[in-house]
Amino acid sequence: MKKRIAVLPGDGIGKEVTKGAIEVLQAVGERFGHQFYFQYGLIGGEAIDAVGSPLPNETIELCKQSDAILLGAVGGPKWESQPTHLRPERGLLKIRKELSLYANLRPTSYYASLAESSPLRKEVIEGVDMVMVRELTGGLYFGKPSERTRKNGEDEVVDTLYYKRAEMERVIKLAFQLAKERKGKVTSVDKANVLESSRMWREVAESVAKEYPAVELEHMLVDNAAMQMIKKPKRFDVVVTENMFGDILSDEASVLTGSLGMLPSASLSEDGPYLYEPIHGSAPDIEGENTANPLAMILSAAMMLRLSFSMHEEAEAVEQAVNQVLEAGYRTKDIMTFGKKPVTTKEMVEEVKATL
Amino acid sequence: MKKRIAVLPGDGIGKEVTKGAIEVLQAVGERFGHQFYFQYGLIGGEAIDAVGSPLPNETIELCKQSDAILLGAVGGPKWESQPTHLRPERGLLKIRKELSLYANLRPTSYYASLAESSPLRKEVIEGVDMVMVRELTGGLYFGKPSERTRKNGEDEVVDTLYYKRAEMERVIKLAFQLAKERKGKVTSVDKANVLESSRMWREVAESVAKEYPAVELEHMLVDNAAMQMIKKPKRFDVVVTENMFGDILSDEASVLTGSLGMLPSASLSEDGPYLYEPIHGSAPDIEGENTANPLAMILSAAMMLRLSFSMHEEAEAVEQAVNQVLEAGYRTKDIMTFGKKPVTTKEMVEEVKATL
Ligand SMILES: CC(C)[C@H](C(=O)O)[C@@H](O)C(=O)O
Ligand SMILES: CC(C)[C@H](C(=O)O)[C@@H](O)C(=O)O
Repeated sequence: MKKRIAVLPGDGIGKEVTKGAIEVLQAVGERFGHQFYFQYGLIGGEAIDAVGSPLPNETIELCKQSDAILLGAVGGPKWESQPTHLRPERGLLKIRKELSLYANLRPTSYYASLAESSPLRKEVIEGVDMVMVRELTGGLYFGKPSERTRKNGEDEVVDTLYYKRAEMERVIKLAFQLAKERKGKVTSVDKANVLESSRMWREVAESVAKEYPAVELEHMLVDNAAMQMIKKPKRFDVVVTENMFGDILSDEASVLTGSLGMLPSASLSEDGPYLYEPIHGSAPDIEGENTANPLAMILSAAMMLRLSFSMHEEAEAVEQAVNQVLEAGYRTKDIMTFGKKPVTTKEMVEEVKATL
Repeated sequence: MKKRIAVLPGDGIGKEVTKGAIEVLQAVGERFGHQFYFQYGLIGGEAIDAVGSPLPNETIELCKQSDAILLGAVGGPKWESQPTHLRPERGLLKIRKELSLYANLRPTSYYASLAESSPLRKEVIEGVDMVMVRELTGGLYFGKPSERTRKNGEDEVVDTLYYKRAEMERVIKLAFQLAKERKGKVTSVDKANVLESSRMWREVAESVAKEYPAVELEHMLVDNAAMQMIKKPKRFDVVVTENMFGDILSDEASVLTGSLGMLPSASLSEDGPYLYEPIHGSAPDIEGENTANPLAMILSAAMMLRLSFSMHEEAEAVEQAVNQVLEAGYRTKDIMTFGKKPVTTKEMVEEVKATL
């Protein structure tokens, strides 16, 4: 097959890990006889420096004409004092909205070989296998008004949590679809005892559930979910929630299995292209040191193979290779524990390619 | 001293643990020569059943005329299908608003004797000592509009995150006051890369910080805070945040040190009275079984002695007694581990009284 992939390396370690993932994809292409065309675009701080916008129109165009998008990471101290519209994260929010990437998927699964780097006890995380599905283009992130005003001589401020029913429906449906192919359970997280939007969310979840009789639906309040995620992470299969709750809970969940440096994500739209990125950020403190963990980006590429190109065997080959490299004891700095073999970013990529 | 205490046992195990705390307070009164007058009020499901409102006016009056308030817990399956205004939690939200309880304080500290019941590794939690300060009367909880509408034939919904500057200021000040008497560090949690309210929150924090040169201020994004809370809980001293983030993060933090059944809280207003409650809920599944852990309620009473009555020695005596009872190996069901001495709610209360 021939596939066009938009590559947006972004800032900090984004560049290093993206480079690694592309090499792995090239190796996959050779082995399985596919042609991947990589076309580069600017995003984040790099784009601000080059053309004065965190997401130039050329990048949006490039993405729309591609079969899938690989994104590294954006941001860094250099741009932190910029006015809001010139901040690297704006590029991220804008690309989500421009491409209608309404669902962010983050699988979290247990790697026996990394159990030691988790702050949680082994018996708590052993066998964890969940997917967080986060609504990504609505809620507090995009609702209007979002502004300050002065009333009777006092400053006040408002942000708006806004959803249309259809926005809730499509992401909840996606969660049920996933659950059907997995362990058959959806945990819908809301704050229905306080928020009207959550009460509507709960109703929508109930009505979607009727179309999936084989999938069990449970509702959980967000505060309780924040506890259960650490106390009993194994109880979860697919977790679905709105944008802000999802931002918090998916980062919380990312700690479970040891390292941010291992965790991929996919952001889906109705008609594609989908976007794939590691969940770790740009980590400017270790930029250019050749110590970043490229596995999250490589696993994001594997998700791309599976979800965008239906290349199941290829995706599995990459995931297998990652597993084997870990089992052989290779570790970048973030997941290094006593007695293992320390490797650089580049060496890790080489190991994965060699194992493929 | 003479003190009037409003007692609102509420639902489920609320009644059992409140009874225990009152016995302990009576023992404190005898030993230190104080007179505590306990007056009972209705709240939650019990109040709905009795008078058709989750927070009757008589209860509000009673609270306003008291020196402090002890609250057990509210809620249960019996009232879960009620319309919103007849739900037990409404009583909780209303009492916060009526008494202007703008700051919720939740200390989380490490009990060596309970380390085994935490899902986290001992080395991660050993020495944890933080206080969460949650804004309690603003934000998404009370902002208007909070409603559904139909536009162009489609259902939509909105909730509103609203704050006045002064509301941010007072709770952030309180956090700095606390930090000054503790380890001298405030972590202010927000989502300033997305929300306008968070950008204002951050500015207010900066300006309050100027009045407390001896206290260090750090800003942390809420998603990162959700990670750091589990990865490096020891790094926190005082954490301050708005209402909804505080709801999520304080429940997350509560898992660190083993059991919800151990954790007290205080809700403060500008001129009192303050309200004290354990953070566990009404736990209807174990209601009436004499197995609930009364220590969170007893420790809430200790907070009351210290913060509302300035009875420092008395508060310490209660906290010491709790520590000793734990060290002696007594455990209610929720914190029971191998080799310890299982006790009922009542027996635990007796042990604390005997140790006092
Ligand atoms: C950078 C920020 C705007 C973004 C978000 O909050 O969505 C990030 O935290 C994420 O989760 O991708
Ligand atoms: C019961 C509910 C309304 C309440 C809240 O969200 O504030 C509870 O979770 C709490 O934290 O006290």
